[in-house]
This record gives sequence, structure tokens and C-alpha cells, in this order.
Amino acid sequence: MADGDTTRRYHLAQRPEGRPAPETFDLRTVELPEPGPGEALVRTQYLSVDPYMRDRMRAGESYSEPWEVGDPLRGGVVGEVVASNGAGVEPGQTVVGNLQWAEHAVADGSDLTPVDTGGLPVSTALSVLGMPGRTAYFGVREVAQPKAGDTMVVSGAAGAVGSVAGQLATLQGAEVIGVAGSDEKVSWLTEELGFAAGINYESADVSDRLDELAPDGVDVYYDNVGGPITDAVFGRLAVDARVAVCGQIALYNDEQLPVGPRKLAKLIETRATVEGFLVRDFAPRFREATSHLGELVAAGDLDYRETVTDGLENAPDAFLGLFDGENIGKQLVKVSD
Amino acid sequence: MADGDTTRRYHLAQRPEGRPAPETFDLRTVELPEPGPGEALVRTQYLSVDPYMRDRMRAGESYSEPWEVGDPLRGGVVGEVVASNGAGVEPGQTVVGNLQWAEHAVADGSDLTPVDTGGLPVSTALSVLGMPGRTAYFGVREVAQPKAGDTMVVSGAAGAVGSVAGQLATLQGAEVIGVAGSDEKVSWLTEELGFAAGINYESADVSDRLDELAPDGVDVYYDNVGGPITDAVFGRLAVDARVAVCGQIALYNDEQLPVGPRKLAKLIETRATVEGFLVRDFAPRFREATSHLGELVAAGDLDYRETVTDGLENAPDAFLGLFDGENIGKQLVKVSD
Repeated sequence: MADGDTTRRYHLAQRPEGRPAPETFDLRTVELPEPGPGEALVRTQYLSVDPYMRDRMRAGESYSEPWEVGDPLRGGVVGEVVASNGAGVEPGQTVVGNLQWAEHAVADGSDLTPVDTGGLPVSTALSVLGMPGRTAYFGVREVAQPKAGDTMVVSGAAGAVGSVAGQLATLQGAEVIGVAGSDEKVSWLTEELGFAAGINYESADVSDRLDELAPDGVDVYYDNVGGPITDAVFGRLAVDARVAVCGQIALYNDEQLPVGPRKLAKLIETRATVEGFLVRDFAPRFREATSHLGELVAAGDLDYRETVTDGLENAPDAFLGLFDGENIGKQLVKVSD
Repeated sequence: MADGDTTRRYHLAQRPEGRPAPETFDLRTVELPEPGPGEALVRTQYLSVDPYMRDRMRAGESYSEPWEVGDPLRGGVVGEVVASNGAGVEPGQTVVGNLQWAEHAVADGSDLTPVDTGGLPVSTALSVLGMPGRTAYFGVREVAQPKAGDTMVVSGAAGAVGSVAGQLATLQGAEVIGVAGSDEKVSWLTEELGFAAGINYESADVSDRLDELAPDGVDVYYDNVGGPITDAVFGRLAVDARVAVCGQIALYNDEQLPVGPRKLAKLIETRATVEGFLVRDFAPRFREATSHLGELVAAGDLDYRETVTDGLENAPDAFLGLFDGENIGKQLVKVSD
């Protein structure tokens, strides 16, 4: 175990105003926790950093309970069971759970799920086979529902969710246009993932490009981003369009709700439907999603990428990089082998 | 016939910038038109003025073709057939159609529908049994879909559509809160129409009142208005809320799309669905709607009110009054007996 009988763990040092900064995070060296009855001690291998975590740093209502100042930060972790006190998992087993940002953490056995990635690296339990993959799966299948021939736009298309969502929609026969923030990302989408087209929003006007790429309008929009990119897509919705609102990363660092053009009249004109969703509402079907995604990866029909940052001490940077679009595919932090 | 062989008719004099004004409207005295083959000449009894007409005065895309400068204005008309040139309707018959803002107008027989208001005044063919009633009927039944026990908010609640929508939702068992612009309107809603509660947005803070009246959130929102009232309701949506976007009268006079707080993250938090609709998409079912609404009125379960302005020359004022909320129930212009 790292450092003998101690472990390192991140706590919320203070609530960020606007963009989180190093002062937001407090890395403490603490005594290695002992698992109580029904608990296990887990050695973290990979930690997932995700945009929704910004929202938990905020006081006030959201769909997640806010973290309190001084609390350990938490996130998706895949790791190895080191000790079990009747937790229903065995030492040596690989598990996934919502654990602390720590080298070692204790969790109730009921919060740990044995990992079966079917021969894929265990990190995929946090990426294509984990929460991001499932979010894409249910968002596409149950909310966005692209039909064959539909023109679908995905924002944040080179991210952990968007890259899977776009591929799943392509497999359903949609013509998928991915919006991402670099030429490298756009090339990945169109050359490797089978997206019909890509728009680099850093170098092109999204509205103009959509006019060219989707002259008959956008039938389906899978939104991970919000803000001006979403304004551009809303301006080009087709009749009976469907919008799945999955994330709004462009807004998460704002303290006040930012303003933008009022678009509801566009929904009348197009008779469009806009629907927000949370993957956790589909929890009873997570096994179905993981199994389906695993089969697609095994068959070579679904590709994925992970951007791995080394070392727990770099977790804040990895998290902050999400807001600059530094990751391609899923951003992970590798904490131990 | 009025003025012998002439008739008076409104044309679009110029496109308004912002709020329409007298210069927008050009009242011309023209020769009485002769019905061509398949056409009928109709004497206007009532003309309907509606918020959507503002949009047709604008150049550029919308869900309706824009009117050209110099074109006659058009709207819902109920009137009497004066002459028929093989139009399939007979002189003396009462018909409804989308006709010119005129004392007399010619229309193709296929655009005229004989009126059967089942003993109610013919004006109801433009109000509770006409387009506004049908809009409420399909908006509530097919889009908003309130369930028994739902808390539902209706904006523009004392208008032609909102007053019917709120009553229909109440009949389906929802607790309906109407938002309107005067104490007189609110009293009408709660004392005569059976709304559970009302909010006068001119004298009360809508957000604060919703906190009191809907402590568990708003399950269904029927929006006729848009703008800040809609912001207040969105801020209080309940989980799995449904929003039917029927109209956005607060925005129709703006030349630039006005800005407001970006609310899509709220849709994620609440997993809400927002859907725009146009009543014309339900055209195959108009007869069903009219019949159902007529039965409800006959049974005393559905009340309605009409605000009638006398004289074609006052049609512009009646239209502009819509944007000041001067009407209670349906705003009509009486052109002849």
C-alpha cells in the first residue's frame, strides 16, 4: 500500500466561484481507513473525472446533493479489493463504485460492483462500458431516438459520451455531424468513428457549416454542451426535431445562469421536442447497456478512446482540462497499476 | 351590401419594426369582388385577431408564409354567403374560413366550412368552438397531458386559448394555476372557470407565488406567453415535468430574438420534456375537437368569454390590444350583424 499506513485523498477545500482552481482542492494524507462491518477497502486503479462534478461543488439545488466544504471528493473508481469485512467481495477482485478521490478508500459492499469487462482493460468500466457509455446508450435509444436517414448533430462529439452517442446513432442509420473543438478531434470522428461529418467550432462558424451540411435541417440533436453551439443547432432544427439534453458543460462554471436567445418560439415553428435526462433513471437496465456496448466493441463496431492522466495528484488538472476540451474520449486519472 | 358596390379591406401598409402601429395598416375601399368559378362572396360578421398574425407581418422564415407589403391581411372570419358561383355553399349559409380583413371577401369554396355551432352564437366558431378552442383541446390532450393530481400552470390564462386549456385540464383532474394580467382576469379564472388558483403577474412576483401555490413544483406548464413568466415557471418545474409551448406572445414584437436565462440544464435536473405544437397539424381531428368542446359547453362544463370590438375600422386596435392583454377570452371584431 502506498505510504504504508496512510493514503492520499482529495477534499473540497472551498467552493469555487466560476472556474475551479488549485485552491478548490485539498490533497490530504490521512490514515488508511479500516473497513467496518460490511465494508471493503479498495485500492484505486483509475478515477473518473466528469463535468457533472462541477455542479456538486456548488451550494444549492441541483440533481445531485452538493458536496460540503471539507468533504472528500467522490467519483467513479475502478480498483482492486484489498480487504473485505464481510462486504460480499473478495480481496483481489476488481470492482467499480462511486468512491473517494483517494489512493485507497473504504466502501460499503452494496456500493461496489464486480467488474467484468470481457477482456477489455478495466479502465473501460469507467468509459465505454461505464457511465459515459451507458449515458450515450440510453440517451440515443430512449431519448434522441434517431431513425435511419435522420440528420443528427452531437455536440461535445469527441468526449466520452458524445463519441459513443454518435457511433450508436450511426449504427442506427443516422447521418451524424459531430461538433468538437479541434481538427484532431474532428478527424478522429470522421476517419475512425464513422461520423458523416464534423465541425471544428474553434475554426468554423457552426451555423454556416450546418447550413451546408444539413440543408434540410437537423432532425435530432444530442446536446452535451449548451451555450452558443446549441443556439446554432436550435436555429436549424427541422420539423418534428428531437433534442436530447445530456449535458451543458459550457455553462457549468458560470455562477449566474448565463443568458442566451430565447428559443421556445422555434419549438412551435418546428413542433420540436426537447427532453432532459439522467442516466441514473435507467439504473435497472445498466446491465443490458453494458452487455450491448461490450458486444459492439468486441465486434469492432464501436471504438473508444481514453485520455489518461497519471497520478492522483494530477486529478484536479485532469478535471479542469474537461472545461478546455483537452481530452479526447474519456478522461481518466490512473492512480495505481 | 355596405357602400353599394364597394367594400373596405385592410392591407399591410408596411412591415412593423417592433410593435405594430396605425401606419402598419392600410384601410382601402375597393370594388366589391366577383366570385369566380368555384368561389363564393362572403359578408363578414366576425373577424378574429390573433397573436400569430404578428409573425406573418415579419419578413423571413416562420411557420407561416409572411404577408407581403400591400397584401390584404387575413384571419379567421365567420360570415354569410352572399353569392356562390358553384362553390358548394349556398347564399344565406353561415361559413367560416381564413379570409381577408374585409367587409366582403371572395373565397374558394374549398376554403369555406359551413358553421354548426349547435345553437351557440356564430362567433363561437372563432372562439371556443374554433381555432383557439381546438388549440387548447389538442394542446392539453396530446401535448401537455395533465394527469389527475398534477399541478399545472397556464400562462395567458385568461386568453382565448388559455382559458379553455385551464378548464380542460381541470376537468382531467389537474390543479390548475392561471397566470394573467389583472385581478379581474384572475377572479374570472378562479371564481367562474374553476381554476384552483390564479396569479396576477402585474402585481405579484410569479416565482414567489409559485413557491407558495406549488411547493412540490410544477408538473405541467401550458405556455402561451414566453419571456419572464416562463422563466419563473421553468425555475419551478418538477421531476418529469411536461411543457407544451403553444405561444410566445411576450416575444412577438421583438425584432431581435430577446435573451433570457439559459434553462436547458434545468431540463436535465428535472428530466423535463418541452414540446412545441401547431394546431394545424391536428386538422384531421378538428371535427372531433369541435364536437367535444360543444358538448362541454352545452353541459355547462366549459365556460367562455368573448371581447368584441365593433367595426372593421377598429380591427387594428383590437389586434394591438392583444399585446397589452386588453381582452378577456377571445378578442373578436364585429364587422356586421
